[in-house]
Amino acid sequence: MELKNDLLLRTARGEKTERPPVWLMRQAGRILPQYRALRGKLSGFKELVETPHLAAEVTIQPVDELNVDAAIIFSDILVIPEAMGCEYQMIEKKGPWFPSTIQGMEDVKALRTGKEAADDLHYVYEALKITKQELAGRVPLIGFTGAPWTLLSYMVEGSGSKTFSKAKKFLYTQPEAAHALLEKLTDTIIAYVNMKVDAGADLIQIFDSWAGILSPEQYKEFSLPYINKIAASVTRVPVTVFAKNAWFALQDMTDTDCDVIGLDWNTRPEFARNILGPDQVVQGNLDPCMLYSPFDNIEKKTKEMIDAFGGHHIVNLGHGVYPDTPLDGVKCFVNTVLNS
Amino acid sequence: MELKNDLLLRTARGEKTERPPVWLMRQAGRILPQYRALRGKLSGFKELVETPHLAAEVTIQPVDELNVDAAIIFSDILVIPEAMGCEYQMIEKKGPWFPSTIQGMEDVKALRTGKEAADDLHYVYEALKITKQELAGRVPLIGFTGAPWTLLSYMVEGSGSKTFSKAKKFLYTQPEAAHALLEKLTDTIIAYVNMKVDAGADLIQIFDSWAGILSPEQYKEFSLPYINKIAASVTRVPVTVFAKNAWFALQDMTDTDCDVIGLDWNTRPEFARNILGPDQVVQGNLDPCMLYSPFDNIEKKTKEMIDAFGGHHIVNLGHGVYPDTPLDGVKCFVNTVLNS
Repeated sequence: MELKNDLLLRTARGEKTERPPVWLMRQAGRILPQYRALRGKLSGFKELVETPHLAAEVTIQPVDELNVDAAIIFSDILVIPEAMGCEYQMIEKKGPWFPSTIQGMEDVKALRTGKEAADDLHYVYEALKITKQELAGRVPLIGFTGAPWTLLSYMVEGSGSKTFSKAKKFLYTQPEAAHALLEKLTDTIIAYVNMKVDAGADLIQIFDSWAGILSPEQYKEFSLPYINKIAASVTRVPVTVFAKNAWFALQDMTDTDCDVIGLDWNTRPEFARNILGPDQVVQGNLDPCMLYSPFDNIEKKTKEMIDAFGGHHIVNLGHGVYPDTPLDGVKCFVNTVLNS
Repeated sequence: MELKNDLLLRTARGEKTERPPVWLMRQAGRILPQYRALRGKLSGFKELVETPHLAAEVTIQPVDELNVDAAIIFSDILVIPEAMGCEYQMIEKKGPWFPSTIQGMEDVKALRTGKEAADDLHYVYEALKITKQELAGRVPLIGFTGAPWTLLSYMVEGSGSKTFSKAKKFLYTQPEAAHALLEKLTDTIIAYVNMKVDAGADLIQIFDSWAGILSPEQYKEFSLPYINKIAASVTRVPVTVFAKNAWFALQDMTDTDCDVIGLDWNTRPEFARNILGPDQVVQGNLDPCMLYSPFDNIEKKTKEMIDAFGGHHIVNLGHGVYPDTPLDGVKCFVNTVLNS
């Protein structure tokens, strides 16, 4: 089905467009009353992730409510570890928790990988197909994955962490096991994202949420090469990489097969353009907390950001939108771009 | 009393020295068996902070055990909010918690400030005096404070946080109250650090632990000017600023009255030198997780870092040492510098 609004895809491919496209990371979520109403009826977060018609419903809610230029499939980055044999629970108000963690090479060897693992995630592909059909070409549909390093960090650490020192210790003390795990994750993700494209994803975004925990040297060894392998495997649609706090690796990211580079709110547009040049497509990067501020300020800062990036820019926040953000602040942000 | 080892102070003042000085952030703490033994006998963290002869004892432990070139007084950045009237508890394994938080201008107005507040912290000055006497000039004694923004973030948020979105929201929605609070914090800190110098501190370090949570623009408005006021008020000893993840403000930091700029482990020496020039004194920045790795690797990476900074450098980690770091890894790091 032909897309009625393909602004996101044209921008991602490097074309000049009439205005920048806009969407928000975590737009399908708690900022929307529709989402909170549905979520309140369910047993938990994972029920929503694993029930295709419900995942599709919340994926489309922000397109209806906010008029954003893209939908992003409602899912979780941790479905990949689970498909490989590393189950997790989502603890309310605490975050993910893995009852058993990866301790060394033996644990890595026991994991499923590649298509065998990715085939398990049939509910994700089903959700994409339903969403695609229900969207009926209104906007492109984004599929996503966690980056191998970020997924490894949860599998080794067992939960979120301020320092991820267990995961980093694993890299320093068992580099062979770390690389073996990253290979298995990469193989699974490659199968996964390509099946997402089969199911209708128009763009793939790779989230490297814990990129900034690594030193520049470790990032170059343990994260970037695997991101690049994934990006190179996706030949039919554009790929975005969002490596949070990895400002130190911006230059290196231009050497990957990623089409779009996501930026966090610490990164001044001038700094990014200086390193990336005027033609690199970027995505971001308003401070999510800016949406708490008065409307005239949101409008002013959004316009300034658009001007500062000077084109080849997908407007977004520099992080996922925070759950308690006022909906009217979000709308002010989106409308400023729609009217730009 | 004359210092037998004044390497830290000579380096901080910009002099060339025979080798770089070395110490570790959080060296007085759980990495040392002596600390754990003493701590196990006490009711809690705050008892240790508030009992001068015990604080002095744990301050000196790493000088005895590790031969580092400086002692840093055992204390807590949150004694300042408490002295101003904002009490906190230290919850085991969770971190600080404030029963009542700052919500707006009325709360700010009710706070004590300046010398009146700082006078309350007599146990800190007493701990410094005892430590100074017991050190008998072996090494310099560092006093420290939290930066106003970092202290505000705890006072508004009420605890640690992944996003500190409440504290940032406060800046965006109540900028006047935020500046009023930052002024009061600054006035208190100025009195505090100068009384620390009276009590024997040979250098003052300002920790801006949550610097990286702010956008570059907010950092310039809500943090740096207050750090600069504090630095300008300390005329008798050198001042170090360590603003974690504030790589985007490195250039601006050179415009302050701070003598030494602390760097986190994300910052490549080449990047820092490029911005700061060869003569700016820097402190840091080995990845704390590097100390989990084999000794030959610790030695190699420490030497590489020293070479890469090329002088005017106080060797440290890029963050506080993690509690479960093997003591022998810490010793390998320190000894590599002592023998350099």
